[in-house]
Amino acid sequence: MIGRKLALRLAADGVLAGRAVSQLSLVDVVEPARPAGAGLEVVTRTADLCDPDTVRALVAGRPDVVFHLAAVVSGEAEADVDKGYRVNLDASRLLLEAIRAAGPEYVPRVVFSSSIAVFGPPFPEAIGDDHCTAPLTSYGTQKAIVELLLSDYTRRGFLDGVAIRLPTICVRPGTPNLAASGFFSSIIREPLNGREAVLPVPDDVRHWFASPRAAVGFLLRAAELTAEELGARRALTMPGVSATVGDEIEALRRVAGEEAVARIRREPDPAILRIVDTWPGRFDPRRALELGFRAEADFGEIVRVYLEDDLPVAAAGA
Amino acid sequence: MIGRKLALRLAADGVLAGRAVSQLSLVDVVEPARPAGAGLEVVTRTADLCDPDTVRALVAGRPDVVFHLAAVVSGEAEADVDKGYRVNLDASRLLLEAIRAAGPEYVPRVVFSSSIAVFGPPFPEAIGDDHCTAPLTSYGTQKAIVELLLSDYTRRGFLDGVAIRLPTICVRPGTPNLAASGFFSSIIREPLNGREAVLPVPDDVRHWFASPRAAVGFLLRAAELTAEELGARRALTMPGVSATVGDEIEALRRVAGEEAVARIRREPDPAILRIVDTWPGRFDPRRALELGFRAEADFGEIVRVYLEDDLPVAAAGA
Repeated sequence: MIGRKLALRLAADGVLAGRAVSQLSLVDVVEPARPAGAGLEVVTRTADLCDPDTVRALVAGRPDVVFHLAAVVSGEAEADVDKGYRVNLDASRLLLEAIRAAGPEYVPRVVFSSSIAVFGPPFPEAIGDDHCTAPLTSYGTQKAIVELLLSDYTRRGFLDGVAIRLPTICVRPGTPNLAASGFFSSIIREPLNGREAVLPVPDDVRHWFASPRAAVGFLLRAAELTAEELGARRALTMPGVSATVGDEIEALRRVAGEEAVARIRREPDPAILRIVDTWPGRFDPRRALELGFRAEADFGEIVRVYLEDDLPVAAAGA
Repeated sequence: MIGRKLALRLAADGVLAGRAVSQLSLVDVVEPARPAGAGLEVVTRTADLCDPDTVRALVAGRPDVVFHLAAVVSGEAEADVDKGYRVNLDASRLLLEAIRAAGPEYVPRVVFSSSIAVFGPPFPEAIGDDHCTAPLTSYGTQKAIVELLLSDYTRRGFLDGVAIRLPTICVRPGTPNLAASGFFSSIIREPLNGREAVLPVPDDVRHWFASPRAAVGFLLRAAELTAEELGARRALTMPGVSATVGDEIEALRRVAGEEAVARIRREPDPAILRIVDTWPGRFDPRRALELGFRAEADFGEIVRVYLEDDLPVAAAGA
């Protein structure tokens, strides 16, 4: 989803890190959507990043910037340990190794979408930039490991990596995925589209959010930062909005009224709560703010971004 | 070296975590030394832990406690990136996977020797238990990754892991190895044995130390802690002595006089200083102290441990 929005934005801008984009190469396990009306060359490929030859072939084109967003989501990585490690860790390592093997002159910027799931309790009141990564999910573990690899490969000059720890992206458009965090979006999206949503956790669950639009902005900013700006620590916690499920519901009420809120059905799910309870609710992402990364100001703004960017599309499709 | 001392101690005690030891199985890439006079069954094996079949065969004996100390040292992991990742990361993962595959009823305590090299600058005045792992060496990166795997595999019930972040072990007996930290020991050991030692860094370099005897104590303590005592975070920074190279030299002067100190030859090595400068000098290892891990009180005590445990052996061999 973020990849599709990023491709649309790149196709529209035609510029990345101050340079004209000559080619956009989109790779996914399913056929990637081709951004409409792109004024630049777009190549789409269906490929399994778990295959070394495939990864080598992708790197052979020597892109200047690689956005690595592919992942098995949290719920699935928890349910299928082998698949999670294979896709989230091994395939990422294959990519880093393929880039290294294409060197030593080839040192692309590699932007890796990490996650705040690299953190685990107990948490301080607000998690600072030098807090330990102590994940309590396999997904968070795999992300934290790739962050370490990316920093080491960067230090050694094999590539020029940046890992951005994304907040939970909200409001996600489209249909629910297997992420345990899916309800954070569906309790806004589904009621706004006239459908019922299930809420599996209590109202006081606090979490850290940013919109898909903000996430695309993070990725673009990560692509343009210089090595001097970044320094040696290449994993950055992204800014976001600290909000409870209750705050979400209030924001929904303000834009769509009681009728929309009534479409949220409370159905406690201890398995989901167990995962979500290991996730942090508030950060102090000083480095990212200093480096110019920007998220929304409050949850109301996050809902407005959905109304502007995605609800029209959803309405047109309905 | 630590493995050999641990084996000697286990053979002498005959007890681990409150239970009689029935068998001691020693595995290394070179033929392990058989502890003399052991009153229990000792099996020694020469094996390459990078081979999956070998690792499976080792696990087939279903030891109750596995001490995983094998590693390519820091200097070598920096010089040979592939070997470092193969031995320090991939072989460790093979071991964890082999234990997982032998389950689900088999859930041994796995004690992994990690290192303070998982930390990288900038450092606070004293590094606390929830400080981030941001290594600036490949060795530290590999150790940090195995810590993450160990915690996740423990959480999932595949094994029962504890990673202990060892201080720099000092005074190391015997001959220098390829570790960049080797001089911290050799400037004490060599003069005490009437030989010259090379000091490649300035006197004000501060570092975090514990004796080999303390390290063996850490490993034994890590083997006996209960899951309740340990909680979810299975990587523990060990206590140690914060001392400068100057403090080391003073301790040497006190036990062996000016003549011994004169055997230290200053020969600045920017490559070694570059690595050592990324290492921390002071910790606040509260959790480990609460859990009963104990190091020496000062560097003088570290020198005394060498005089008691190792100098007689070195003298006998000379």
